[in-house]
Amino acid sequence: MLIARFQLLSNTHALTPSSETETFWGLVEGDTILTLKSPPFEGIEPGEERFPLSEVSLLSPVCPSKVVAIGWNYEGHIRELGNPFPSEPLIFLKAPSAMIGHNANILLPPESGRVDFEGELAIVIGRKCRRISRDQARDVIFGYTALNDVTARDLQKKDGQFSRAKSFDTFCPAGPWIQTDLDPTAVRVMTHVNNELKQDDNTSTMLFNPYYIVEYVSAAMTLNAGDIIATGTPSGVGPLSPGDEVTVTVEGIGSLTNFVKPEVI
Amino acid sequence: MLIARFQLLSNTHALTPSSETETFWGLVEGDTILTLKSPPFEGIEPGEERFPLSEVSLLSPVCPSKVVAIGWNYEGHIRELGNPFPSEPLIFLKAPSAMIGHNANILLPPESGRVDFEGELAIVIGRKCRRISRDQARDVIFGYTALNDVTARDLQKKDGQFSRAKSFDTFCPAGPWIQTDLDPTAVRVMTHVNNELKQDDNTSTMLFNPYYIVEYVSAAMTLNAGDIIATGTPSGVGPLSPGDEVTVTVEGIGSLTNFVKPEVI
Repeated sequence: MLIARFQLLSNTHALTPSSETETFWGLVEGDTILTLKSPPFEGIEPGEERFPLSEVSLLSPVCPSKVVAIGWNYEGHIRELGNPFPSEPLIFLKAPSAMIGHNANILLPPESGRVDFEGELAIVIGRKCRRISRDQARDVIFGYTALNDVTARDLQKKDGQFSRAKSFDTFCPAGPWIQTDLDPTAVRVMTHVNNELKQDDNTSTMLFNPYYIVEYVSAAMTLNAGDIIATGTPSGVGPLSPGDEVTVTVEGIGSLTNFVKPEVI
Repeated sequence: MLIARFQLLSNTHALTPSSETETFWGLVEGDTILTLKSPPFEGIEPGEERFPLSEVSLLSPVCPSKVVAIGWNYEGHIRELGNPFPSEPLIFLKAPSAMIGHNANILLPPESGRVDFEGELAIVIGRKCRRISRDQARDVIFGYTALNDVTARDLQKKDGQFSRAKSFDTFCPAGPWIQTDLDPTAVRVMTHVNNELKQDDNTSTMLFNPYYIVEYVSAAMTLNAGDIIATGTPSGVGPLSPGDEVTVTVEGIGSLTNFVKPEVI
């Protein structure tokens, strides 16, 4: 199943004032979206309204209590950086306030002279859990989405700690939706900038696969329904410029497109 | 004002099943606590029930959407670590799932052989904001609390990134309540372990004061009502052992006490 969060585009529906900003969960079926009665983590309960996908605005598919991310998880990216191979996953956190959805704008802040895309497969957690073994991980994973771990590369180097450089508002696009049926151990991950292929790898070359990552992260911290774990980026990261269109595609999920603009203060 | 979140101790009240786990906001007055009708961030509306403080269990005073923390902000602590003086605050993030309240247990996980206390003054944000200048910072600060930035020192060194080492469940005690009336630029911060004084400094020796920190953090990310910014720890950090009682005291706020136990898996 494909599960999305969305709002109605205000020009295409006779909306009451309250429904203009109302947020829905929905089941994507072909080029339509069927509303759900409640958040999908405790079971899928179809509602009664169906909208054409062209008449909705897709939002970040979750509002997580935390965004965990993994560094240096693809062989090619580690070689590209000249780093040693890690013996364990490297965990860092992004601020949930950075999340945006499909088609939203990535804003380049004046504090940075170099903002990079990093296309990734992301895990969406389905229920509160702690200390889950890799063999139990499927039970707590709700699904997967595409994610762009946007990074102010200059500030990342300057700070040493990654969190600020990766937490500017709009620096965590995710979507377009959650795919609940996916084998995450062998899917292609690509990033295009202005239709030019920049990253192209397969999750089979990850050092630590998604099930092991859930074991490792949940050994430290309780994960909640809707929490996100971004699983690391392949080689080929590079800068974004105003006017760029950046698309992260994960095989079996879909394509997450965002537009790059300068932040106006 | 002193604002707390609490639950009723179940042995001391004739509780309905639902109220056993019900969470309240309250105004601490002497040795009593008066309920509030709603979260305090949009205005203080006193309710009608008053309980003796001895009959309530104080919780983490906020449920933040993010916990931002600052490294290396006291002269003494930077000298103690042998680090150069930073030109800007060093930001990192702790997982909100690590938060616990006054009198709760800090659990030492088997993954770490060395878990340290770090007593700190923490800022509680009062409303959603971005790019707030130091001169406007008072307008978005709701109040202040005491916080223990508990850190698995061995894992912090091993990972390089701080987030995992500082995000184990129970690694973010805060409380006992929020003080809304405080000049944060000149208050004493102390940590005692088993009644022995371990840290003793004054926020006047901070490199970056709380108002500047709000400017710097909010330049990167939107802050929400209830978000926490821990402002860094003075010199004197040290290890915790099972059986220890650790107390962070901030002048003008109060004392946050927690008990150290091994995590049983």
